[in-house]
Amino acid sequence: MSELRHCPIKHRWTIIAPERKHRPQQFIVPDDSRVAEESAAGCPFELGSEDRTLREIFVIPRANKAGSGPNWQVRVVPNRFPVLRVEGEVKREGDLLHDMVSGVGAHELIIESPDHDREMADLELTELALVLVAWRERLVDLRRDFRLRYVLIFKNRGAEAGASLSHPHCQLIATPIIPTVVAQELRSARDHFSRKERCIFCDLIRQEQRLDERVALESDRYVALQPFAAALPFETWILPTKHSHDLAYATDDDLLGLASMLRDLLRRLRVLLNDPPYNLVLHTSPSPHPRPGQPDYWSTIEHDFHWHIELVPRVTRSAGFEWGSGYTINPTPPEEAARFLKEADPERGAKG
Amino acid sequence: MSELRHCPIKHRWTIIAPERKHRPQQFIVPDDSRVAEESAAGCPFELGSEDRTLREIFVIPRANKAGSGPNWQVRVVPNRFPVLRVEGEVKREGDLLHDMVSGVGAHELIIESPDHDREMADLELTELALVLVAWRERLVDLRRDFRLRYVLIFKNRGAEAGASLSHPHCQLIATPIIPTVVAQELRSARDHFSRKERCIFCDLIRQEQRLDERVALESDRYVALQPFAAALPFETWILPTKHSHDLAYATDDDLLGLASMLRDLLRRLRVLLNDPPYNLVLHTSPSPHPRPGQPDYWSTIEHDFHWHIELVPRVTRSAGFEWGSGYTINPTPPEEAARFLKEADPERGAKG
Repeated sequence: MSELRHCPIKHRWTIIAPERKHRPQQFIVPDDSRVAEESAAGCPFELGSEDRTLREIFVIPRANKAGSGPNWQVRVVPNRFPVLRVEGEVKREGDLLHDMVSGVGAHELIIESPDHDREMADLELTELALVLVAWRERLVDLRRDFRLRYVLIFKNRGAEAGASLSHPHCQLIATPIIPTVVAQELRSARDHFSRKERCIFCDLIRQEQRLDERVALESDRYVALQPFAAALPFETWILPTKHSHDLAYATDDDLLGLASMLRDLLRRLRVLLNDPPYNLVLHTSPSPHPRPGQPDYWSTIEHDFHWHIELVPRVTRSAGFEWGSGYTINPTPPEEAARFLKEADPERGAKG
Repeated sequence: MSELRHCPIKHRWTIIAPERKHRPQQFIVPDDSRVAEESAAGCPFELGSEDRTLREIFVIPRANKAGSGPNWQVRVVPNRFPVLRVEGEVKREGDLLHDMVSGVGAHELIIESPDHDREMADLELTELALVLVAWRERLVDLRRDFRLRYVLIFKNRGAEAGASLSHPHCQLIATPIIPTVVAQELRSARDHFSRKERCIFCDLIRQEQRLDERVALESDRYVALQPFAAALPFETWILPTKHSHDLAYATDDDLLGLASMLRDLLRRLRVLLNDPPYNLVLHTSPSPHPRPGQPDYWSTIEHDFHWHIELVPRVTRSAGFEWGSGYTINPTPPEEAARFLKEADPERGAKG
């Protein structure tokens, strides 16, 4: 059983997930070729291999499929090696200086399509929109579980970004506490709103649109920008231009628009950075439900938050300085990254 | 000129260091073989190649050296590709939501010995102690520069840990603001002290020694322990058992004792994890000098801090979950890591 542990000095949380490895030799540096190059034949995410995963949680069937046999376009299954487990009660305990929370949560895999070799950047827009629909539906469903305070949806693409299977998929980890990165964003948004009665993200979007130095892409519903203090080269945030605290409320049309901007961005990055490994993370508001000091449902909705997607290509490596300082070193000014992205041709990044 | 930038939403700092790379193609995933395997012939840190580095800042000569020619055991030189530059004034500016500080600082390389192939774990104890003496002397010297608020000393060993030259060396980056990781530790120490009039690190050492689950090594002056919420497998902290806020006050004998524990730990890790890449970071108190709200020298000394070394083998990879949550996932319970370390034979980790 895993455990969330809090450091009283660094105020950081770690998930100690001991069932994953047992001997020190298993921690030797992973062979970079270990990942991602398994063939479709060995892959548990293929059409017809449904019995090689755990039983599915959610499925979107393929439209207009002819014939019999398995039929799905997007499929959500539990991770066979979860870092947090769905079973059990959330226990919060302390031991002198130390705090811990039992490792209850959810860890799911969102298989993006039956095609082993079609990356997210290669999907049809309607197909990619269905992946985002799966995100939304899993968010809505997991919020019914009052043990879970946050649902984090993300994607690791490429071995250097932490992927261990090449068949395109996203992941979802729901946690019994709000992750520190999200908690900080919520605090910033709440502080700003309480002083100004405005959303800090809405202010940021307006400021960046006016300055026009770090906006990479714009559509009628979304903007993709390089944050001023981008931690890594080409870190990009996609935000809805109309205020919305929670992707759970996005309509199908909103998600189609999101799919369009996301795919455009992925294709441009592919051209610019030679098909880079990347991480993609959804930041949305936490599950609203009773928490200490907030006894009723309505007071727990974080209306002052603004959902967004963060995308970071993994083209640099962190070292001792980053670890010891908490700073990152970014050799690409976000103004330059925005300009490169704006000028890139997304068509050249389409595979077919 | 580089620039420190603050994110108003994430409250994190990034060093934007644009002179380091110029075209997006330069960010494509680095070839893992790019690093560390250059031969002594091509290395700028060899005895006799002194003119291939910038002019030295500090040097410790080799004892009992016969003959003429270059003579040094430890040598400190400026980094040719500094992320922060010594020249210039620290400007603090704001632009609507955004804050920035000019990239003034220091970036130095501490060459551990003239031997290309002797890792830190292979040095004689007296040689390793001299490296630590160089740490101390650089700390003391750079604190005279009131523009610099913190001096971070660290080592990247191995390509996966971010090293770009294989000749064993440490690095030093001095920054015009206190890094967030250190600032959090200082806050924790100050809060604890103000409530209890005790050092939080001293309390932690006593607690861990009593529980005896996470202490890996002990000597008359130092303890090496696995933190309860260790972020990564085999993360280890070495702390002086007697309270001391600042390595700058360590005596030569203290540093010899530190060298002994550090080398012992490095050799055990080498046995357990097959000579792993690692990062090593010194956490010591910030430079005492006038800051806003603390006008006199004495009030700026952080007596309630407790210096220590943090060592993290880089045997796992961070991915989207870590990036999006701020949590890490650690598959090795620190209790097991402590047991493995305690039982490992450091002699087997000595190269010769």
